[in-house]
Amino acid sequence: MQRIADADVKAAFQGDHGAFSEDAARKLLGSEAATLPFRKFDDMFDAVSSEQADCCVAPIENSLAGSIHQNYDLMVEHNLTIIGEVNVRIVHNLIVPPGVEMQDVRRVYSHPVALAQCGRFLKAHPGMEAEAAYDTAGGVKIVIANGRRDEAAIAGRLAAATYGAAIIAEAVEDNPQNFTRFLLLARPEHAASISTRAAAGPRKTSIMYRVANKPGALFRSLAAFSLRDVDLCKIESRPIEGRPWEYSFYVDLAGDRDEPRIERAIAHLGEMTESIRVLGSYPSAEAFN
Amino acid sequence: MQRIADADVKAAFQGDHGAFSEDAARKLLGSEAATLPFRKFDDMFDAVSSEQADCCVAPIENSLAGSIHQNYDLMVEHNLTIIGEVNVRIVHNLIVPPGVEMQDVRRVYSHPVALAQCGRFLKAHPGMEAEAAYDTAGGVKIVIANGRRDEAAIAGRLAAATYGAAIIAEAVEDNPQNFTRFLLLARPEHAASISTRAAAGPRKTSIMYRVANKPGALFRSLAAFSLRDVDLCKIESRPIEGRPWEYSFYVDLAGDRDEPRIERAIAHLGEMTESIRVLGSYPSAEAFN
Repeated sequence: MQRIADADVKAAFQGDHGAFSEDAARKLLGSEAATLPFRKFDDMFDAVSSEQADCCVAPIENSLAGSIHQNYDLMVEHNLTIIGEVNVRIVHNLIVPPGVEMQDVRRVYSHPVALAQCGRFLKAHPGMEAEAAYDTAGGVKIVIANGRRDEAAIAGRLAAATYGAAIIAEAVEDNPQNFTRFLLLARPEHAASISTRAAAGPRKTSIMYRVANKPGALFRSLAAFSLRDVDLCKIESRPIEGRPWEYSFYVDLAGDRDEPRIERAIAHLGEMTESIRVLGSYPSAEAFN
Repeated sequence: MQRIADADVKAAFQGDHGAFSEDAARKLLGSEAATLPFRKFDDMFDAVSSEQADCCVAPIENSLAGSIHQNYDLMVEHNLTIIGEVNVRIVHNLIVPPGVEMQDVRRVYSHPVALAQCGRFLKAHPGMEAEAAYDTAGGVKIVIANGRRDEAAIAGRLAAATYGAAIIAEAVEDNPQNFTRFLLLARPEHAASISTRAAAGPRKTSIMYRVANKPGALFRSLAAFSLRDVDLCKIESRPIEGRPWEYSFYVDLAGDRDEPRIERAIAHLGEMTESIRVLGSYPSAEAFN
């Protein structure tokens, strides 16, 4: 299949320009890729299905907030496959129109989750009132558009650069152990035409499956991997609504679906599950970059 | 230990009065319990540690947004124990000052996550502009305080009742499969003095542990349960930052820590883990109520 030139790749993301998702897109695809912002995850996935975009970048889990099940659902619903992943450290900064100083700031815009993650900073600056915004980068956009000398936003470094704003306090988050894992998703028939920045190296495979509601069913299903010394990098059960005691499982394992022992493990797992779906094989990201 | 009379129990929760967390507190403790609102999870946990409150109600996982790892961390940091759980279906409603009608509404306040969950409704009503608020119930509080005839909020039923507002459209969320599991947490030495509404019935035990970074270590650790026919209700790995390929695991299992086979399973698990912590044994909630 012919590769798309890097500069011609169109990646959809959720949020305003400057969002952490756009940062993830650049890390995965290089700085030349075109990035298309969407307000909602549904719309971002629709853009890929309808071929308006070549791929999308979806946050899938955060070290403080857990897995974003909704994006697993959308991935399956839209029949996309995972072609890459990246871990982005979420660093929040206090961002202002150039020239504004710390003591001038009376109002701080950001997504409520980001505001909550900067609770200690805000408590130490009682003169600053927190104001909810639709997203972090969107807060910077508002502050620059308003052009006031007493407003700031809390967002990532890329948001400041995107809107020509200045960072006056770096890393104002309470907990530095805050990172988000993003997946790069594409239509399966289109996947091979997109190059990512990943070096050749270890690969990972993501699987989702459902086992019958019997004690020990999870344990037996994991034997398909452990009896073949396949390492698991993630396991998570997800309750199925309306069916108490039944679960879906997400499993990420070390290796490519084309390796014989992985292929055999997946076939073996298939014998024990009600449904199984391979979400993709892709280059494994550095733990944190 | 002497029981606290229901009317004297003080439960801390995060959010404004009328929040889903306050709804969970009432379901767990009855309508007479006093509920104390806190803006941040940290402050809510501090209130229990400092004995300002008897217990707190913490959201721990959502069917669309996953586990709230931060609250697992705070539970451990504050050395609290789980004494109850409840599943609350998250139903979003369009809420207005009494007398305001659908066609008057131009602006809709809510938490950005709730606004995103009502994307189809908002798309179908392009005359309504979405406006971020710090939380869902807080949006209702704003709309009632403003007293305008063209503003609405999206929030739960309790928020409407709390602020004397009217629901003009029910269940406006895109996905009805939206529920949150809340845990009731107390200081261990105080746990026995708090009565919950749970009927005598099946119990559940939550455990958190860390295994050495060796292939198959997770599988072997689960054998402690499966070899004793102990049912698992939840399993989740959580990466440990700065230590690639090392994980914490959260496991919920059916049974009480005082049952001999559970006691033995936990002791057996202890032989295989680097660290292990029993977070509590408590009455198992109905799957959805």
